Amino acid sequence: MTTTSSPPARIARRRSDKQQRLDRVAALADGKVLPTASIVAALEQLLAPGDRVVLEGNNQKQADFLSRSLAQVDPARLHDLHMIMPSVGRAEHLDLFERGIARKLDFSFAGTQSLRISQLLEDGLLEVGAIHTYIELYARLLVDLIPKVVLSAGFMADRAGNIYTGPSTEDSPALIEPAAFSDGIVIVQVNQLVDDVSELPRVDIPADWVDFVVVADRPFYIEPLFTRDPRHIKPVHVLMAMMAIRGIYERHQVQSLNHGIGFNTAAIELILPTYGERLGLKGKICRHWTLNPHPTLIPAIESGWVESVHCFGTELGMEGYIAQRPDVFFTGRDGSLRSNRLLCQLAGQYAVDLFIGATLQVDGDGHSSTVTRGRLAGFGGAPNMGHDPHGRRHPTPAWLDMRQQTGDGAPALLERGRKLVVQMVETFQEGGKPTFVDTLDAVEVARKSGMPLAPIMVYGDDVTHLLTEEGIAYLYRARSLEERRAMIAAVAGVTAIGLRSDPAEARRLRQEGLVALPEDLGIRRTDASRELLAAKSIGELVEWSGGLYQPPAKFRSW
Amino acid sequence: MTTTSSPPARIARRRSDKQQRLDRVAALADGKVLPTASIVAALEQLLAPGDRVVLEGNNQKQADFLSRSLAQVDPARLHDLHMIMPSVGRAEHLDLFERGIARKLDFSFAGTQSLRISQLLEDGLLEVGAIHTYIELYARLLVDLIPKVVLSAGFMADRAGNIYTGPSTEDSPALIEPAAFSDGIVIVQVNQLVDDVSELPRVDIPADWVDFVVVADRPFYIEPLFTRDPRHIKPVHVLMAMMAIRGIYERHQVQSLNHGIGFNTAAIELILPTYGERLGLKGKICRHWTLNPHPTLIPAIESGWVESVHCFGTELGMEGYIAQRPDVFFTGRDGSLRSNRLLCQLAGQYAVDLFIGATLQVDGDGHSSTVTRGRLAGFGGAPNMGHDPHGRRHPTPAWLDMRQQTGDGAPALLERGRKLVVQMVETFQEGGKPTFVDTLDAVEVARKSGMPLAPIMVYGDDVTHLLTEEGIAYLYRARSLEERRAMIAAVAGVTAIGLRSDPAEARRLRQEGLVALPEDLGIRRTDASRELLAAKSIGELVEWSGGLYQPPAKFRSW
Repeated sequence: MTTTSSPPARIARRRSDKQQRLDRVAALADGKVLPTASIVAALEQLLAPGDRVVLEGNNQKQADFLSRSLAQVDPARLHDLHMIMPSVGRAEHLDLFERGIARKLDFSFAGTQSLRISQLLEDGLLEVGAIHTYIELYARLLVDLIPKVVLSAGFMADRAGNIYTGPSTEDSPALIEPAAFSDGIVIVQVNQLVDDVSELPRVDIPADWVDFVVVADRPFYIEPLFTRDPRHIKPVHVLMAMMAIRGIYERHQVQSLNHGIGFNTAAIELILPTYGERLGLKGKICRHWTLNPHPTLIPAIESGWVESVHCFGTELGMEGYIAQRPDVFFTGRDGSLRSNRLLCQLAGQYAVDLFIGATLQVDGDGHSSTVTRGRLAGFGGAPNMGHDPHGRRHPTPAWLDMRQQTGDGAPALLERGRKLVVQMVETFQEGGKPTFVDTLDAVEVARKSGMPLAPIMVYGDDVTHLLTEEGIAYLYRARSLEERRAMIAAVAGVTAIGLRSDPAEARRLRQEGLVALPEDLGIRRTDASRELLAAKSIGELVEWSGGLYQPPAKFRSW
Repeated sequence: MTTTSSPPARIARRRSDKQQRLDRVAALADGKVLPTASIVAALEQLLAPGDRVVLEGNNQKQADFLSRSLAQVDPARLHDLHMIMPSVGRAEHLDLFERGIARKLDFSFAGTQSLRISQLLEDGLLEVGAIHTYIELYARLLVDLIPKVVLSAGFMADRAGNIYTGPSTEDSPALIEPAAFSDGIVIVQVNQLVDDVSELPRVDIPADWVDFVVVADRPFYIEPLFTRDPRHIKPVHVLMAMMAIRGIYERHQVQSLNHGIGFNTAAIELILPTYGERLGLKGKICRHWTLNPHPTLIPAIESGWVESVHCFGTELGMEGYIAQRPDVFFTGRDGSLRSNRLLCQLAGQYAVDLFIGATLQVDGDGHSSTVTRGRLAGFGGAPNMGHDPHGRRHPTPAWLDMRQQTGDGAPALLERGRKLVVQMVETFQEGGKPTFVDTLDAVEVARKSGMPLAPIMVYGDDVTHLLTEEGIAYLYRARSLEERRAMIAAVAGVTAIGLRSDPAEARRLRQEGLVALPEDLGIRRTDASRELLAAKSIGELVEWSGGLYQPPAKFRSW
């Protein structure tokens, strides 16, 4: 099968380059194990100026021992690195640029660091390649961003290099495979080293794919991003959740879905066992989920609503609960979660009926963005799940329900189904800032940063439903851009966009069912109370879990 | 991290069910190794009626020992299986239905078996769940088609269950992971068993994910699907290839791309080192590829056109060549190819500038399909790569070049880039059947089979360029459906659709650059000769490869 002779040097440059680098650290390493104290020296030998380096900044898990160590290398030896990072979340990620170690950045998301990225960009210390969705960034690692080095993180390794990621598999396989099979160098920090594979709870990444493991100075950092305390859910969230269930989930028979983070979707999760139950919807909607293990999903799981959950990553505190619910979650032989962001993004793109998310700004055409002035926040996964994949061919009731007569006499069999993409926003943000705006801040950010296009999270024509506390606009039924704009204005409340809504036009939209107010859905605003929440606090979530959910300290204030 | 106590039985049904099944074969198996001769008995014990079973019929690799064995089980014991198969390619795949062992089928592609599927459907012996693209089928395994059993294939295994797939990794990881982490049962047939992991050339799938390995009675079947003999490339293919290079690749600076199978795209590959070289395009176009290792790509690789190739699967005979070209192909430590259909589909969806494919029928709106009367051929991967993924956010020159002024006063920064989706067809098929038709056969097939929508391969509004021997229609620039229809008709030759083209309108389209004839692109039809092919036979491909390419016997007729 395989030829044993060596390939000619002119066409095996990556391989010989790798071998030279491995030779340089041979004296430092004990087989595949790099000593903790030698990591900075090892990185200086294993990397070279200009390298494309993947650093596992993920949405949750951080290879922070490696990033802190990389920030300590000598910029005279190691400079102009081209960093590729799903998530830029830590101060040292940007220290790399300030110190001249790195120069170019390709990334997907930068929450708290977004302001500083803009500053470094302005100061000429950082050059942005592009901002991606997670999944397109992974895809480019196989095409035009093939990495030279990958810095990743796991729970445990054996001396051969087999990796146990624990419940935080997340992006690791997607980041490692492209380097492992292109003569790249894969370095994985772990919390613990064992001698033999038999001592690992399970193997998530085979030793073959890993060049070096190093025990970190402390366990990798991970953030509980997906925990929402039910105490902060307000009656307006409950009202919107009721509208989502009646006006969207029930109406279109939504059986599989993704929920973003936020109090709105947390409210939906928490009223399934009360309001949803009363409507007789159990087993009829919301059976299959693709999302992080939200603690607010526990009551729905415990009351039998949820058949399956596939996860992007884990959520701190949920590990014990997940391990005890193997029929619902994807778990390994060791009992703990197997998350996988690439596969979950794929499932959220291609296999679910509905994506529902929130955003910070929506314009009159329905374009939305979370980018606000001075902040290059990035995209994460929302644009991937927040669009209709035209490569989907399998039908489900919800998907077929989005069919639109083309109106030009084409046969009905040439129509297309469509994924439901719901934007769920209050018309005003906290602090009185309007959500609906004439021009997205993203447009100005793009202009200032010299981006060719504005960083739009979800484009208006990809949105099928816009849900506010005022009502639901069934945008997929709009017959023209003008009608779409009128429908958006009709639910935009007393924002400038909303005030432009013509009352007569709004009446017509309502009569034709293009827009529905709560009363049109049989919902009384006065029924929307916190009493509908199956759990009203983190403490009650713990109770629902039978004590298995162990919230991080900062949420233990119940 | 992980709780050690067992989860409650009511929420660990999958796990206890699995344990019961494992217990039933404990006497048959030697650890994880099932004896070849006992496989039918083992399948009868490990599977249960109604199970969802993934059977690795792939596009190329076949778990055919397992499929032949499954077809031999007693239908009185094992019946009503729900089969999930990327590709239905072997007679025994459908024997399962004829014998009553299986009842429901979810699949992606069924080439040679498509006629029999239609027959079984008509006879009420087979029920189709849905027809998918490959990648959406993988995605559903994590959501609403979680499998109970996966039957897969690899080259070698050790006794612990580590799998070496060799260059045919293909769909295996995508099919196995969903079952391995949901208490499903994973059975892998291999050509060879070794005692210890150290005897495996590399590990593609960790032992943890595998329940049983079984040595097949003979090596798994694999078909050389992607070999096109250059002898069959005609001058018209060369002409169309020249038009593709000048009118599309050069014009839009296409740097990353996917090629489908066919003599048209093979011609493009073979004239890059001649015609492309003459145009000075080396290094400017076609640098990164996502495709199977087409033998016709060898001259372009050898003359330095190709920086990287990521592969869906391997191609028989190319193994030795690939192993000697590690800078270009993704290979493992053992030197052999690492293919991965899921990742390559993802790359082909999200990371490349252009998809170019052929089809059997195109209608006046530009919808296309390979489904012809009586044949439920399925989709494979084309619809996934043959559409513009709205979740893409990173720009490239080609992608940005597709921007269209929205024309309604929206700021230019709110425009969108677009993936290039090219349909490259001759106006008539072999045998004089017109490619351009008023109504696709797919519409009638859908009506007869009771499908809710016609099985369209690529929808007209997803196509950016239509290329025939007559010219190129730049469909992405059409300002209306009417204009799109006129552009299609203008390149549809003397088919019924083409004859409807109004000469004055065609002139206008040409003047405005919406349609280009060869002469508009500076191409003389008389220059389009086979002399431009860098290799004119399989033998010359072998020469280009320095003897490394070893074509299968049926191609050795040069």
